[in-house]
Amino acid sequence: MKILILGGDGYLGWPTAMYLAEKGNEIFIVDNFIKKKIESEFGIKPLFPTKTLQERVKIWNSQTKNKIKFEIGDLLNYRFLNGVMEQFKPNCIIHYAEQPSAPYSMANRERAVFTQYNNVVGNLNLLFSIKKNCPEVHLIKLGTLGEYGTPNIDIEEGWIKINHNGRSDRLLFPKKPGSFYHLSKVHDSANIEFACRIWNLRCTDLNQGVVYGITTEEINKDFENFCTSFHYDGIFGTIINRFIAQLVCKKDLTVYGKGTQKRGFLNIMDTLKCVEIATLNPPKLGEFRVFNQFTEFSSLNELANLVISSGEEIGYHAKKINIVNPRIEMEEHYYNPKNTSLLSLGLKPLKLSKKEIIKNIKFVEKYKSNLNEDLFKPAIKWDLNEKSI
Amino acid sequence: MKILILGGDGYLGWPTAMYLAEKGNEIFIVDNFIKKKIESEFGIKPLFPTKTLQERVKIWNSQTKNKIKFEIGDLLNYRFLNGVMEQFKPNCIIHYAEQPSAPYSMANRERAVFTQYNNVVGNLNLLFSIKKNCPEVHLIKLGTLGEYGTPNIDIEEGWIKINHNGRSDRLLFPKKPGSFYHLSKVHDSANIEFACRIWNLRCTDLNQGVVYGITTEEINKDFENFCTSFHYDGIFGTIINRFIAQLVCKKDLTVYGKGTQKRGFLNIMDTLKCVEIATLNPPKLGEFRVFNQFTEFSSLNELANLVISSGEEIGYHAKKINIVNPRIEMEEHYYNPKNTSLLSLGLKPLKLSKKEIIKNIKFVEKYKSNLNEDLFKPAIKWDLNEKSI
Repeated sequence: MKILILGGDGYLGWPTAMYLAEKGNEIFIVDNFIKKKIESEFGIKPLFPTKTLQERVKIWNSQTKNKIKFEIGDLLNYRFLNGVMEQFKPNCIIHYAEQPSAPYSMANRERAVFTQYNNVVGNLNLLFSIKKNCPEVHLIKLGTLGEYGTPNIDIEEGWIKINHNGRSDRLLFPKKPGSFYHLSKVHDSANIEFACRIWNLRCTDLNQGVVYGITTEEINKDFENFCTSFHYDGIFGTIINRFIAQLVCKKDLTVYGKGTQKRGFLNIMDTLKCVEIATLNPPKLGEFRVFNQFTEFSSLNELANLVISSGEEIGYHAKKINIVNPRIEMEEHYYNPKNTSLLSLGLKPLKLSKKEIIKNIKFVEKYKSNLNEDLFKPAIKWDLNEKSI
Repeated sequence: MKILILGGDGYLGWPTAMYLAEKGNEIFIVDNFIKKKIESEFGIKPLFPTKTLQERVKIWNSQTKNKIKFEIGDLLNYRFLNGVMEQFKPNCIIHYAEQPSAPYSMANRERAVFTQYNNVVGNLNLLFSIKKNCPEVHLIKLGTLGEYGTPNIDIEEGWIKINHNGRSDRLLFPKKPGSFYHLSKVHDSANIEFACRIWNLRCTDLNQGVVYGITTEEINKDFENFCTSFHYDGIFGTIINRFIAQLVCKKDLTVYGKGTQKRGFLNIMDTLKCVEIATLNPPKLGEFRVFNQFTEFSSLNELANLVISSGEEIGYHAKKINIVNPRIEMEEHYYNPKNTSLLSLGLKPLKLSKKEIIKNIKFVEKYKSNLNEDLFKPAIKWDLNEKSI
């Protein structure tokens, strides 16, 4: 299959590229490196040094017959995007290429606007380029479980049958997103559903939970050359990765608010398997299909406690502290998101275990001297002060 | 009350400004005249010549003690917007300032992107400027009934109580918008709901039907100086206005598709009353309130037949023809939008009658020589050809 991976330099994009190349697919990566710029704005470095994309691809291609191609460019540049589409003619597009940080989108007006402009317009350009060049392509769009918020009813997969006043219809699940970033994904999904409906395009929208983990089979082959960026900071860091970094620094694990908020999550290796399952099972033309992509869910307190008890097995004595929540969100809530679609298509979830956490702790330990404790603090408050507007 | 009217030069913005000034409010208009640019792109002129905003305001202010102020500028220019907000400190903001044409948004990629960029970013800038300058202001945002599409259940006012698997929640009504323009309004509403939820702002979102009509009490005082732009074209024209123009030209009334599609509509004078009712009954802080703003709904065929039978009373013998639908939409559908909120707050609807249509026909007759029959044709097809992408 010819697979175009947009955002193919990222935490998930790069491992996805290697994984799907290894399965014999023809892979073409596009990235604009916006994440590098944002890292610099906040003085962030990922924990491990990573090779440049150019180096990684060169080394990868020297070691395997399953070559990876790439072009540097931006979805906001329609001429560029269209050129790639015309040249590569993909069967499948995996779209990771969005500003991915909720805190960044809440930092101030400029960054909220950038997030929605970048994500919504990049995605619109993609829809028009698909319509023009390859209307039968299978678009796999990365969304997030956070788009749904925490409604008081079960969270279905993208669509819900509503019975109302004696009639019924299947409609998009009403969402209650928690940041301007999450909102940008909701806008994208609405635009894509429309394009499927009127232009007969097809899409799988993956509403993904929080991803944890460092290695994949391909990264394990040559960690120094192939590792992916690992963030533990307040902008790009995901929660389990940050807790592990705090533990290794012998710092308290900082839980936002009461910690009774629940999050769906999954192992990075399951992200790759979920995306692969989507590629192998395309929806029919005209279908806007949504999968909720997570394998487990827990409260923040439960996650912190699991990291702490895992650490205890190898001599760490950390504790959890609940700090003022920088986000504005419901802390006590019902939570029951469904994830049956990917399971029914064959996903065999890796469960988060002490063993898995200990494995990650040991990786982080190797790079302990790189850890910057300043980055553990919440970088952004949802309730802006006037200066930041 | 100090009322800021964004988009105060438009078909509805200008009559709203005069109407609310006459009620003793202090009015400040902002407009960027983007509609004039778009008119030129399609060779469109409104039926009646209108004075410039500068002339209209000057004449208005010379005749009344209820003065109107204005500034020319763009919501995309945050410094400008913020300056107006700091200077005027409104109690209420009426936000009409968006690219308002569904066909325009479907013309090609560039215009789809412009529509979403302009509307979403302008509205985001407004939310941040409100948060900074006047977090207690009452934002009245113009949306459209077309955001809902045509679900197979009753259309509630913005929110719906969903019972699902034995639990229930009140969530945003799931929408199925019919163009990139309608989608931009859905995105706006989602962004505003979030801002109300986390920043305690307050908003009334008016999901308005198709507006018809030419005159208001204020316009009637001095039609040549105070009339508002009347469009009958395929970009900005609304359906009843276009049917009347076709009748006056002795042309067939062109109905898109089967004509069984239903639309909610209202008289321009009722738009003013609805907006006034909203200004006088603000929601509480933190509330995102939605009113469906229409007084009647009919199928396109019924509307065409009413215009034809009205014309017959004064000697016209028009007929209706059903042409290929340039839009992609359901033509046969259930339709039951609710509009009880504005009625319960005291709206006394003007009903569309033969008398009202004949009044409008006579206005259009006076300017018959200005009518450009080329503009009756649908300007844009929803199913783009490759050239336009």
